[in-house]
Amino acid sequence: MNYRIDNLQYCNWSRDIFLINREAGLNAVHVTLVYHEDYDEFLQRVKEWDRFFEENSDLIFLGKTFEDITKAQSDNKTAIFFGFQNCSPIEDDINLIEKVHEHGCRFMQLTYNNQSLLATGCYEKNDSGVTNFGRQAIKEMNRVGIVVDMSHSAEKSTLDAIEISEKPIAITHANPSFWHEALRNKSDFLLKKLSESGGILGLSLYSHHLKDGTNCKLENFCEMVAKTAEIMDVKNIGIGSDLCLNQPDSVVEWMRNGTWSKSTNYGEGSKKKPGFPKQPEWFLDARGFNNLETGLKKVGFNMQEVDGILGNNWFNFYKGIN
Amino acid sequence: MNYRIDNLQYCNWSRDIFLINREAGLNAVHVTLVYHEDYDEFLQRVKEWDRFFEENSDLIFLGKTFEDITKAQSDNKTAIFFGFQNCSPIEDDINLIEKVHEHGCRFMQLTYNNQSLLATGCYEKNDSGVTNFGRQAIKEMNRVGIVVDMSHSAEKSTLDAIEISEKPIAITHANPSFWHEALRNKSDFLLKKLSESGGILGLSLYSHHLKDGTNCKLENFCEMVAKTAEIMDVKNIGIGSDLCLNQPDSVVEWMRNGTWSKSTNYGEGSKKKPGFPKQPEWFLDARGFNNLETGLKKVGFNMQEVDGILGNNWFNFYKGIN
Repeated sequence: MNYRIDNLQYCNWSRDIFLINREAGLNAVHVTLVYHEDYDEFLQRVKEWDRFFEENSDLIFLGKTFEDITKAQSDNKTAIFFGFQNCSPIEDDINLIEKVHEHGCRFMQLTYNNQSLLATGCYEKNDSGVTNFGRQAIKEMNRVGIVVDMSHSAEKSTLDAIEISEKPIAITHANPSFWHEALRNKSDFLLKKLSESGGILGLSLYSHHLKDGTNCKLENFCEMVAKTAEIMDVKNIGIGSDLCLNQPDSVVEWMRNGTWSKSTNYGEGSKKKPGFPKQPEWFLDARGFNNLETGLKKVGFNMQEVDGILGNNWFNFYKGIN
Repeated sequence: MNYRIDNLQYCNWSRDIFLINREAGLNAVHVTLVYHEDYDEFLQRVKEWDRFFEENSDLIFLGKTFEDITKAQSDNKTAIFFGFQNCSPIEDDINLIEKVHEHGCRFMQLTYNNQSLLATGCYEKNDSGVTNFGRQAIKEMNRVGIVVDMSHSAEKSTLDAIEISEKPIAITHANPSFWHEALRNKSDFLLKKLSESGGILGLSLYSHHLKDGTNCKLENFCEMVAKTAEIMDVKNIGIGSDLCLNQPDSVVEWMRNGTWSKSTNYGEGSKKKPGFPKQPEWFLDARGFNNLETGLKKVGFNMQEVDGILGNNWFNFYKGIN
């Protein structure tokens, strides 16, 4: 049985997008519920999703375990798994970890770009690693079954998390920095450690993470995947597209600035290009998975490896969450 | 005109304590409103103080500027200045800094013992210094008139704060580590930098910060003050007693653990001595200021210096807050 999984999307959700994801054959999508929201605001997001599930019950449902991915496949639906790109919903309360899990959270980044109470983000000048609270939080996440996601974290913090976590961690959406130097992308050393520990990398299709940005070529992307498979076990590589379909630019401004700054931070963009970047033409939305399949075969991956990268590897990772 | 100021108390407040502070001749006290509370919980603390002010209007009132200290003296009252031992009330929102100032906050620690969103606490293993949000927050605190207090912060974070802040910062309650090695006490290097930048140190009378703890002798404490005055300008030394009168031990447990841990952290205490330590007999409460006066004279300070340490230095520091 083969699965197709996109392990990171943050779209301006609508039936149209759920239809596109079905057309792409996605059996599961990990969706971002929050960036900077606190616990109460997270509960609001859950309510919004309750409505999506009700109104689109022919297309999607809330996924809780890997078995829901199998169910999704047999029902021709997409299982939606909740995740956070920051730890703000647990505020300063370790007991909220169990609460957010009860509401469906299965992935939580310890940090977005800045320092959090748990660890250091990749945009900070110094990285002190996982904090006292962070150590406790990882232990609790392991216990209840929430994956530690270090996509936006700094290097030492990520290495700490790999070491501290008793379960494999994930980098749901990022690329190797050998291919494209970006604060958000990851070093060979880190990717090696991640893979050795059983952790998984979701490769990103977000233009700021791509060599040549929007103009990145499919072939070049797939060559990068092949090189990454020399550093990491190919079984620990998947896709986390970071698709942000139909989001207005005000959303990326809020993602980058939250409420912590009086001046504007452009993050991976710039004053001249402050908004969401355009997607490369071969990955305008999840239907680009078909292009990835073609491209990955072309650079020499066998069918089993391609199926692994496009979903089976994430499926196997999900088996270990609980 | 001479003033007596205790620049840190966190008592279980009651009319009895306000009377003791009057008896001690205190014209101003900086009181801790919160440790781990968020913005809404801070507003609750303000309401509780509104009631204290109403019911004890013959003894206390809310202080907002240094002029209120003069007013307190002429009215035979104690001006109460609000402060936080953590930045939790501003949550992740820079705009709340102005809000808490409007409600009376005049001192805010960037951290308690753990990492915060702004800086690193003295109980963390690594200290990454002031964070991105921290830089913005200090700028905003400077603008609205809230003193940066680094009493519970780690060394690099404190040195960063001294450098970043355009106004002098405070360490409202700590002692030099040359005298008593404690994570909370401060190095000679840091104290020198603090003094050179116009910052001020409030010496603590909390037993865990004292050499020989509860058995610390007045003479020994005053000798420490004399040595500190060789490192720092004596005009930058004051008192921040850290008195926690009448607090039940459950409070110190909450101070140390907040809601971030499932196991118990004993902070400066230990499993055998988990509660609040006893005060030394010469400083059971603020009336001990009289003993300090005697002791400080005895070790060679002149009257002007003694008056400075016991209040005038804080008074002068308050002049620069707004």
